[in-house]
Formats: sequence, structure tokens, C-alpha cells
Amino acid sequence: MNLTLKNILAVIPQNDKDITKITNIFIEGDKIAAIADDAPAGFKAEKTIDCSGKMAIPGLINAHTHSYMAFMRNVADDLSFMDWLFGRIDPIEQKMTNEDTYWGASLAILEMMKSGTTCFNDMHLNIHQTSRAVKESGMRAVICRGLVGSGDDEAGSSRLAQAYEERDAFQDCDRLTYFLGPHAPYTCDEAFLKIVAAEAKKNHMSIHMHLSESVTEIENCKKDYGCTPIELAERCGLFESPFIAAHCVQITPSDMDIMKKYGVSIVTNPASNMKLGNGFAPVPEMLEKGINVCLGTDGAASNNSLNMFHEMSLLALIHKGTHRASQCISSAETFRIATINGAKALGLGSEIGSLEVGKKADIAILDLNTPSMCPNNNPIASLSYSANGSEVDTVIINGELTMEHRKVLTMDEERILFENEKIMKRIGAQL
Amino acid sequence: MNLTLKNILAVIPQNDKDITKITNIFIEGDKIAAIADDAPAGFKAEKTIDCSGKMAIPGLINAHTHSYMAFMRNVADDLSFMDWLFGRIDPIEQKMTNEDTYWGASLAILEMMKSGTTCFNDMHLNIHQTSRAVKESGMRAVICRGLVGSGDDEAGSSRLAQAYEERDAFQDCDRLTYFLGPHAPYTCDEAFLKIVAAEAKKNHMSIHMHLSESVTEIENCKKDYGCTPIELAERCGLFESPFIAAHCVQITPSDMDIMKKYGVSIVTNPASNMKLGNGFAPVPEMLEKGINVCLGTDGAASNNSLNMFHEMSLLALIHKGTHRASQCISSAETFRIATINGAKALGLGSEIGSLEVGKKADIAILDLNTPSMCPNNNPIASLSYSANGSEVDTVIINGELTMEHRKVLTMDEERILFENEKIMKRIGAQL
Repeated sequence: MNLTLKNILAVIPQNDKDITKITNIFIEGDKIAAIADDAPAGFKAEKTIDCSGKMAIPGLINAHTHSYMAFMRNVADDLSFMDWLFGRIDPIEQKMTNEDTYWGASLAILEMMKSGTTCFNDMHLNIHQTSRAVKESGMRAVICRGLVGSGDDEAGSSRLAQAYEERDAFQDCDRLTYFLGPHAPYTCDEAFLKIVAAEAKKNHMSIHMHLSESVTEIENCKKDYGCTPIELAERCGLFESPFIAAHCVQITPSDMDIMKKYGVSIVTNPASNMKLGNGFAPVPEMLEKGINVCLGTDGAASNNSLNMFHEMSLLALIHKGTHRASQCISSAETFRIATINGAKALGLGSEIGSLEVGKKADIAILDLNTPSMCPNNNPIASLSYSANGSEVDTVIINGELTMEHRKVLTMDEERILFENEKIMKRIGAQL
Repeated sequence: MNLTLKNILAVIPQNDKDITKITNIFIEGDKIAAIADDAPAGFKAEKTIDCSGKMAIPGLINAHTHSYMAFMRNVADDLSFMDWLFGRIDPIEQKMTNEDTYWGASLAILEMMKSGTTCFNDMHLNIHQTSRAVKESGMRAVICRGLVGSGDDEAGSSRLAQAYEERDAFQDCDRLTYFLGPHAPYTCDEAFLKIVAAEAKKNHMSIHMHLSESVTEIENCKKDYGCTPIELAERCGLFESPFIAAHCVQITPSDMDIMKKYGVSIVTNPASNMKLGNGFAPVPEMLEKGINVCLGTDGAASNNSLNMFHEMSLLALIHKGTHRASQCISSAETFRIATINGAKALGLGSEIGSLEVGKKADIAILDLNTPSMCPNNNPIASLSYSANGSEVDTVIINGELTMEHRKVLTMDEERILFENEKIMKRIGAQL
């Protein structure tokens, strides 16, 4: 619809930095038509929202998550990685139905939308259900078909085929994009990774993969292949397609050089990396090398929140601690990492990630009249250091109003909470 | 008033751990009269709140802050400590009036109350204004008269006298307690610290002090006194009164032994310590030594949030990262650190910090019907890992309902936000 946001404090890019000014945003169809005092010629608004005392930011981009896991929130905390995965998560996954996946993904989308995220990058095996939840909710997403397998596994090619089938099945929804998602070096062997690399190249698909998350992964990769996971990915040809690598906690300067050479993007997941005891990714060093770094929450079972404001706060704080340097990763850098860098990593840099004329209207509107945002001495700093996500008042995705005054218009919030409570009660009783 | 909280999921201590159960909480006057299926004999409720789908926790205790600084939120970010203090904070402080202090403290109290904090430990020079804001708001606080000085400074004793005067002036408010607050080893000399120690002992006052925050502080202390700040505090006799030490980022095992010997409590402030580039306090090692550790946000100028849920999340996550150990500081420990440990540190362990019969009714009630808390697989874990503070629906302090369904009943929220915006506009124009 055509929509006018009046008198809004907008965060907009200007000469490689972000500035804020009070202006109007005119939305025509799915795009930003103007950010200006006056409407473009011939513009007719179907709805005008007075946004005095409110702030517009590009919707946040959660560049790595597993949305279906939302109902596993807090089922497995303060455990070792092996106890977490094999003792708690795996047994639950084995009891999951298609409908559970759908409701889990719906809960994740609801939580993300209510905390200002308008696009997420998801990895799972059951991509049909996630696609369905995205399509219905008005959210934007990149759906990565999770792939595990070995070179001599016949099932590998049918899993690959499914990625294309789903892409074709949902081609009427322009908010959905499909990637290939080889899971990790410890769940895919070298022969299979080479097949995936060749497939991606042939079909012009981008790739999303977990890489260099834990010390154990590095040790096993060196033992099995005589190289680091990043070197393995290079040698399999995976970096020859657009590539987004999740985690990269345990990477060397030479790994970073390889990633820089191929233009690989890295998603950092601070909460998950700390919570599972993997440590801190060398994000300041990645940025220093000129690598495109973006930000993700990971799944709700290893965070246990999908709130990107929480994740921005962690990113802006933890490296100041590890480097004992108060100037390390500023709030201005953090904001870009959570928005435009995510868009670039997902191949959507010209479409989303900033408030600019001609881009898709993916906008989160924050209420500044809250104690945590008062006084509004520095709007961009307040996003990382003061906001908790509940300030998000209204959300627009692809030009559509999906939430207004904290009421989600595109989803049945009560039903989603009810169904997710029910899932864990049922599975809990089965375990 | 007499109040019944019906059908509430309550977090209550049982045999040295916390359990949750659905029950009723009966409040008589300022105290918890019963936590049970049935009301105590003769109990008549003036108000009954149906708390189905809600969770009661003891109000969080923010054990170190400077409330007046709330209007300096985000005025000085991503700067070195010296640029932060002398370039930005000091010039603002020099323009501050008494009324500014009052409104700043009021904003801090508002933000804390709305995020479930029911007691805070505050340090500032102008304690009259903070006391006034606490008294009016229904909040509970420990007010520490900030003291800087040298042994030959005549003004020192008048500053000390002020702590007693304010204590006497506000003796009608049983939610206020007064401590002495010698600022730090770099703003008080040894002779003055000895005077403070003797005064505290003579007048049965507890002491709150910044100790071992930065590497520079340690280096200067060693140069000036030939010992660590902890050793200096011991030798001045400060630890002979009940003592709560803020920060302790840079402390040695032998410092910890000294603190354990005297029963000193430590307040850790993860956000502030990271944000100012001071690093990570060795909290797991403190806990291992059996030291009472509690949690604080520090002031809004160095955080920039007073939300204890955010601080709990940091505490539960960062040490898992520094120690590469997913079991380090559990959510159950974090909850105790943010509640009963804070109460003990403030000498209020028998009064507040847990939901127990006979204790003051200081209670935060959270709405569980929110995406971030759904499904409620582990209520205590969800406090550290999933909540963002906006789930706090209702707050009771000293038996009084101070917030109901997110409407603060004891303060004028709109006026407080308005006055704080005005302060920074005025001071900003003067700088």
C-alpha cells in the first residue's frame, strides 16, 4: 500500500556514515519512494502515520538462525556441547512433526518481528514448513536447505533437488530466497562438499554453512583432512559461489585472508558462541581485514533469544572487553553490521539494509518515549547500548504494515504461543 | 495494603536451590504473610490479582549504580576512559543543578522499576536529591554518600556529617538505608580512607567503594602505596566494617583471599567493565573462593542501560566465553547473584532478596505470554537467557503496588521523560 510516515527521526546513510534527521518517509507499493519534506509528485497515501517521537531504522537482519528451534528455548542450558546436542536437542528433534516445524518457525518469526527484525537467514532440513510460515507472516527470509551427507550417499542429490523444488514452489513470494546449506565440515565429507560446490555453481545458488565454530571441529578437520575448515571449504570449491559462513570463532589470520580473497561474508553469533563455551570470534580482526561481517542470533536453543537488539549489545560490548579497548567496534559499526552488512551477505545489498529511495520498505519504527531511550542523546548509540527491542512499535516489511503499536497484524500471536507450549508438553511427555 | 496474588508461578528457595511452583502469595502490610494454597487465618485481601500465566520473582537488586547519571545516557560512547570522564562527563556534571539530580535519579528509578528492580545501591555526592526521588517513588535503596578527599582536607568531615544528616532527615522512610561511599583509591588518599574507616566503625555504618576497576588504578596504587587497592583498603581498616566493593576487575587470588577473610561482598558490573575497556572480572574464581558476588549496572553513562535482565544475561554468558566452558556460571547462580546475594551484600539478607514468608514483599511479576518467554521450558533459565525486562508486568515494593500492567502508579512517567530531555538540551547548549 502507499504509506506516509510523518515527522519521523530517520537513520539514513550519507557519505559512508549514518546520520539521523527528522523527515517524512513515503512508501509506494513495496518500495521507499522518497525520504523528504514533500511527497513525490502524484503520490497519494492510503494511510499516514504520525511518527513524532519515533525513530525509523532499516529492519534488522538476523543473518544466521534455525527458526524451527524456537520451541526448544531453554530446554538445554549450562551443558557441554555434546550433552546439549546428543543429550537434549537430538531426542527432541526425533519427535518433531511437520506441524511442529511450522509452529516453531512461526514463533521465531513472531519474536523477531516484535524485536525489529525484518529478514532472517535460516538453515534447516524441513524448508517447506519454514517457507510456509514466512510466506504467511509477511516476513522476508533466505531459506537454506540444510545438507548432511557423504559423496557415496545416494540421498544427497535428492536433498539438493529439494532446495530447487521449494524455490520453485514458492516463486510467487518475492520475500523468499533459497540458498544451499551444507551443514558443517563434521557432517559433510569432502566428496559431498565438492558435489554441493559444483551444484551451487551450476545452478547459481549461494551457500550458507557453519564453519570453524568449536576447537573440536578444528582438531577433527586437521586430523581428517590436514587443513582448517576454511581451507577445506576453499579446496572443495565452495567459496567460488557467493558464501556466508556462520560462526568462524576459531579462525587464523591466514583463514581470514582466504575469506577476504573470495569475498566470503562471516556471520558472528556472540550469544551462542559464549553460551556453548566456544569463545569469542575475532571480529575486530575480521573487520580490520575488510571482511564483510554480519550478525545473527543462531537458534533459540543456543541463545535463547532471537532478539537482535540483545545481539547488537553483545557485539558492541564483548570485544571491548576481550581487547581491553573502549573504542573497539563502535555502536555505529554495530548498526551497519546488523543491517546493511547482513543485506550484502545475503546478496540483497541493493534491495534492503538501509533506508534509501528505491529500496524495499523494510522498516522498524521505535518509540523513543520510553525510560530506556530517554534522553535520546545519541540515537544510533542507543540502539546498541540502551534499547532492549521492546521499543519497536511498528514494523513494515516489503511495504506492508505487519505490526502496528506492537500488535502483529499478519499472525495470530495467541495461537502461536498456545501451539508452541503444547508441542513441548507433548514431546516432554514422550522423552 | 493486603494483597493476594492468585495462581502465580513463584520462584522460591528450597534447600539451597530455587524451585518454581504455581501457588498463591498473600501479602499483609509490607510483608509476605504466606505462600500457600490457602490464606493465613484471619487474612483479608483488599485486592486480589489473578496471576495465571504470570511468574513472581523477588525484585532484582541493582547493587551498584549512580542513578543521577540517567540523563547522561549515550552522551559519551566508544571513547577512552579519560576522554569519557574528563572530555564528556565532568563538563556535564559541572553544569548540573539539584533539580537535575532529582530528575536524573527519578528517570533511573523509573527505568529500574519497569525492568523489575526493586532495590538499588547508589553512590553520589548529592544524596538529598536521590533520597527524595526514592522516597517519592516507592522504590527501596541504599544511599552511599560519595566521598573524595585527603587527610588534611577540612571539608572531609563535613561531607561525612552529611551522610548522617540525610540518614536522620529520611528516617521516616524505612525503604532507605545509608552507607559511606569513599569513591576510590585514586580520589581518596590513605589518611582520608583511615578517617572514613574509623568513622564507619564508630557509627556502625557500612561502606561501598569502587575498587580495582582499571589497570591504571592498580599501577598507580602500587606506585603510590606499594600495594594493590584491596591491600590498601585492608590496611586502612575499611574492611572492618561491612563492605561492598564495586568492580574488582583486576584482582589477584591473594586479593580475593583478603576479601573472603573479611566477608567483603563484590558487585560485578559486566556491561560497564566491557564498555570502558576494563575487561572481565574473574567472577568464576570469586565464586570458587566462596566470596559473596552480586550484580550491578553501574551508571547509565557507562552502560547505557539500568536493566538488570540485560546485566544477568551478560553475567551468564561472558564467563562461558572467557573460560570456554558452557557450564560456567549457570542461570540458577545468576538469578541468586542478582537477588539474594545483592540483599546480603547490602545487609538486607533477612529482609529482601527471596520470596519467603516474613520477608518484605518486594516482587516483580512477569508476563509469560510473550514470544520471548514461550514456551516456558525452564522459568529460571528464561530470566537470564530469554527475558529482556519488558516482560515485567507488575511490581510490588514494601507491600505497595508501584506498577500494574506496566503503568507506574507512584511516578509521573511523562513528566520524568520530559524533564530529562530538557536537562540535556539545556546543558548541551551550555557546553
